[in-house]
Amino acid sequence: MRRLMEQLYPICRSITGLGVRRTLAIIREQLPLVIHEVPSGTQVLDWVVPKEWNIHDAYVANARGERIIDFRKHNLHVMSYSRPIRAQLSLSDLRAHLFTLPEQPDLIPYKTSYYGEQWGFCLSERQLRSMGEGRYEVVIDASLVDGALTYGELLLPGAEADEILISTHICHPSLANDNLSGIAATMALAKRLNARAQRRHSIRFLFVPGTIGPITWLARNQDTIACIKHGLVIAGIGDPGALTYKSSRRGDAKIDRAAAHVLAHWHRPGKTLEFEPLGYDERQYCSPGFNLPVGRISRTPYASYPEYHTSADNLDFVSLEQVEDCLAAIEATIDILEQDAHYSNLSPYGEPQLGKRGLYSDISGHPDRRRQETNLLWTLNYCDGRHSIFEIAEKARRPFAELSAAARKLEAAGLLQKLR
Amino acid sequence: MRRLMEQLYPICRSITGLGVRRTLAIIREQLPLVIHEVPSGTQVLDWVVPKEWNIHDAYVANARGERIIDFRKHNLHVMSYSRPIRAQLSLSDLRAHLFTLPEQPDLIPYKTSYYGEQWGFCLSERQLRSMGEGRYEVVIDASLVDGALTYGELLLPGAEADEILISTHICHPSLANDNLSGIAATMALAKRLNARAQRRHSIRFLFVPGTIGPITWLARNQDTIACIKHGLVIAGIGDPGALTYKSSRRGDAKIDRAAAHVLAHWHRPGKTLEFEPLGYDERQYCSPGFNLPVGRISRTPYASYPEYHTSADNLDFVSLEQVEDCLAAIEATIDILEQDAHYSNLSPYGEPQLGKRGLYSDISGHPDRRRQETNLLWTLNYCDGRHSIFEIAEKARRPFAELSAAARKLEAAGLLQKLR
Amino acid sequence: MRRLMEQLYPICRSITGLGVRRTLAIIREQLPLVIHEVPSGTQVLDWVVPKEWNIHDAYVANARGERIIDFRKHNLHVMSYSRPIRAQLSLSDLRAHLFTLPEQPDLIPYKTSYYGEQWGFCLSERQLRSMGEGRYEVVIDASLVDGALTYGELLLPGAEADEILISTHICHPSLANDNLSGIAATMALAKRLNARAQRRHSIRFLFVPGTIGPITWLARNQDTIACIKHGLVIAGIGDPGALTYKSSRRGDAKIDRAAAHVLAHWHRPGKTLEFEPLGYDERQYCSPGFNLPVGRISRTPYASYPEYHTSADNLDFVSLEQVEDCLAAIEATIDILEQDAHYSNLSPYGEPQLGKRGLYSDISGHPDRRRQETNLLWTLNYCDGRHSIFEIAEKARRPFAELSAAARKLEAAGLLQKLR
Repeated sequence: MRRLMEQLYPICRSITGLGVRRTLAIIREQLPLVIHEVPSGTQVLDWVVPKEWNIHDAYVANARGERIIDFRKHNLHVMSYSRPIRAQLSLSDLRAHLFTLPEQPDLIPYKTSYYGEQWGFCLSERQLRSMGEGRYEVVIDASLVDGALTYGELLLPGAEADEILISTHICHPSLANDNLSGIAATMALAKRLNARAQRRHSIRFLFVPGTIGPITWLARNQDTIACIKHGLVIAGIGDPGALTYKSSRRGDAKIDRAAAHVLAHWHRPGKTLEFEPLGYDERQYCSPGFNLPVGRISRTPYASYPEYHTSADNLDFVSLEQVEDCLAAIEATIDILEQDAHYSNLSPYGEPQLGKRGLYSDISGHPDRRRQETNLLWTLNYCDGRHSIFEIAEKARRPFAELSAAARKLEAAGLLQKLR
Repeated sequence: MRRLMEQLYPICRSITGLGVRRTLAIIREQLPLVIHEVPSGTQVLDWVVPKEWNIHDAYVANARGERIIDFRKHNLHVMSYSRPIRAQLSLSDLRAHLFTLPEQPDLIPYKTSYYGEQWGFCLSERQLRSMGEGRYEVVIDASLVDGALTYGELLLPGAEADEILISTHICHPSLANDNLSGIAATMALAKRLNARAQRRHSIRFLFVPGTIGPITWLARNQDTIACIKHGLVIAGIGDPGALTYKSSRRGDAKIDRAAAHVLAHWHRPGKTLEFEPLGYDERQYCSPGFNLPVGRISRTPYASYPEYHTSADNLDFVSLEQVEDCLAAIEATIDILEQDAHYSNLSPYGEPQLGKRGLYSDISGHPDRRRQETNLLWTLNYCDGRHSIFEIAEKARRPFAELSAAARKLEAAGLLQKLR
Repeated sequence: MRRLMEQLYPICRSITGLGVRRTLAIIREQLPLVIHEVPSGTQVLDWVVPKEWNIHDAYVANARGERIIDFRKHNLHVMSYSRPIRAQLSLSDLRAHLFTLPEQPDLIPYKTSYYGEQWGFCLSERQLRSMGEGRYEVVIDASLVDGALTYGELLLPGAEADEILISTHICHPSLANDNLSGIAATMALAKRLNARAQRRHSIRFLFVPGTIGPITWLARNQDTIACIKHGLVIAGIGDPGALTYKSSRRGDAKIDRAAAHVLAHWHRPGKTLEFEPLGYDERQYCSPGFNLPVGRISRTPYASYPEYHTSADNLDFVSLEQVEDCLAAIEATIDILEQDAHYSNLSPYGEPQLGKRGLYSDISGHPDRRRQETNLLWTLNYCDGRHSIFEIAEKARRPFAELSAAARKLEAAGLLQKLR
């Protein structure tokens, strides 16, 4: 995972172009992605696929020809989707095209202007302050021409046509938490779910440029959309913060309850946020026409950590342990979707005698053993056909995995019968 | 407003009589009130319009003929609706008719005995303690005879027959917060709403004596009652406390939600209280037979500030800034009732591209601008025909005015269509 | 009550046998209990009535013939339902049959092994540490043979066939809070309810051994079960803790709301807990097949006070004041079930004039009087046919007894009419 992130970090990604293609090619070394190319100018919902942007070089040089701002040193130095330019400008004319973060004077900001045909450079406030009056040579050697928008897709078929959608964005250049952590986790998740002997749901993975990516996918897959029963956007999961889950627009979808349950019981408990139509690609999946049950898992919410969209969001900022830990939470959430079931208690009048079935220690024993026994009682009491195991876990405020194990034990003992 | 209150303060109001008539006449100098006179003895619901009470003079004089307690010095010195009396009494016999506030020894209490045919004087505890033994001359030169109950009414017609009822009580003598602040605010509100170019609702204002006033109005206007869709009792809004809204008996009427929303977002956030069948005239509008959606706006709830119903509730106690501020909150609440609407998002699949319509700054800009853009996203996402703009404001926890402005912008851009 | 507990404390009770019979005989001296004997081997739901266990003597003696652990000194020394044994054992072989509480080294634990055909002794950790190596004589002179399970039942008939079930367990030997406090309170409650001139509900009392007792009763009374409209398990109510009520599985049964209301208004407010399928005999009544509206009243919940199931749960640990106080709370709860009613306000338009009916003091008077007057207003406002007096008490957050008294006053004044 670390190696993958090191490999992806230097690539200058944007919403179209070679950076995205190279990124998807690296992912395809490990996963059998289908790569889609959608021509510029294609109408997708209310949008049009934009021209393809590629950049070769860019700099601002001083009178002595020294590169004061140099794209080769950091991808963030050029505003994404800057139109080509070659000019000699005074500092005051150049100034309107320079972006800094006065309150974080050492950091380069990340700026984009996808649909405005503008140009700009980003630099640290400190760098800006060191620039004297005089004329500067400004070069952006980029192309903005008809081409294509590229995204990757992978479907792991399951026993049912019902799908779980996992979506991550792949359009940010040289930013590690946003979005390499999401790409790495999504890849690892796909490999693990692919390795499972059986899957109830089909699982669809999307590696897409932000906003225009899901819009393009939604526009081209109207038939598939009805199959999506649960979904998760993965974004920004490697920072030091606790996990946060942002609910889908529905608010009470099963994915919402499952993720909230997992985070509430996590070793470091996470927080669940209400839906709001701001954020990452869940905005598109949760637009009112689609209203899909798609939530988002992150750590510190976007825009609320100081490294967000700056050069400080680098590989040092992201911890692999945090990515792995989030991955485990995502798997636990998917386990609920995959494994939840309704059972019927075959002995619902009074408690069944667990002792004679070897399910109960007569003289109260070890706390772990006792905990398991009480899991049996919770499961028996609420397996009345109306509560699923997950709903019992919610009621008991105990992890789903514990009650799911209890249900399997009780089924083996002939006390429960699986309904659906 | 200050001048009005100074004009009204010295008048000895009660639930009937010349004090009420003079008060209504002063209001009519500024507003085209209809003044109703209902004869004593008229049956109104479970009540009977009482005799009319008027007072000319009253005092307690000592053996030297000095007026120890003098109605001319303060209206509060005579218990309201005291029957006439002329007598010589020992202090101990007089004592049963003297009311003080032992814990607030400098203040004169406000006492009434509308239906008991009693008499009494109110004075400060300090004054009482200074009264020596001996005989006192007691005079209450009042009349309690058949006459009428007087109240004022004003209807501002709107586009619809549906009405908003605004009610304030006018029966308290020389008490400023309770009830001059309410009278002043209701008058100012009527003038402002009258000046509006258009009104959706018809708006009915009642200036009525407490309890018997709304009972009389309700008894005589059974046909109008069905038109009342929202209502507000205004009482005690000039003291230094924060705003409080007391919900109607229904609890979830639109006026309840609108007022709660306004107070939650107010610069100094106010509190919303549940309904209880105690308080001001909302008790009558919210009696179970009528159960009208009428709430109450106040500052510190009645009986819970030390100046309440004492001579300390004078003009110094009331701040015009507080009255104005409450008035603004009432107008914001009425704006919700007047302006709320349902819209349909005409581009509900994915977010519409705001940038190409000039509604979105490409390079994220000023926080205010950004806030407005996110208001657009909230509005678009929830204008699904089911949520009104007000309901979206509740969901977004943002002021109604912001989302209402966003809706108008989106309608102008062809992205929303007004439904109802 | 104290004498009863002193009489019951030394008896060695278990789930069957002479201890239970002696206990029920003592209860029958004061209450006309019906005593049931159910033969060993009888199938009851998923269980079988076990063999009857009786114990005559038991000890562990050292090489010098001295009784080191002596059943005659404390009933808890022998694990309940120990099979008979006579043996000479080394300390290390004996060790597996000795139970202590290492963290409470002075206390004897309470252990049972009803269905395992095991044997064991319980002793203090300090006692264990003083036992040297060497051989010990082990004697348990007990019998475990076909006999019967014994329980007691009492039905106080009421005007209606609908029943309130009161259940307490009677199977613990020489433990005072768990279960003598429950037995004493249940007896006192039965006597008081029996003394009532009239009862709306029929009230059924069960004195049963834990778990197998209610299972046996449920198995044998399937027709009666449909009559049980409310129920309460009483257990552990004499310790110093505040009252706790554990809701029935239904969670919103009337008993749940009534008990929660009483505890919320108690002089020392108690706590209401959600249902969980762990605890005392409510587990059986609330098994999903029956799902009866039976809650539990206790003080400190079982297993969460250090004296629980140890020799420290003795007569000194239990306070009669605490038992009496709990009894009062139970009676207040039953009063709600017995006395709640719906009334119709016969004067629902506006407030009726209370003054002319002598229900309202004209000049506001004493706080108690004022409180009573506001109780009248609450009652009048919500007696709309939809709210019962208890529901009004919940809404007003005032004790049921106050509003019930108000309703009777208003009915006498002709303002309310009883509906049901």
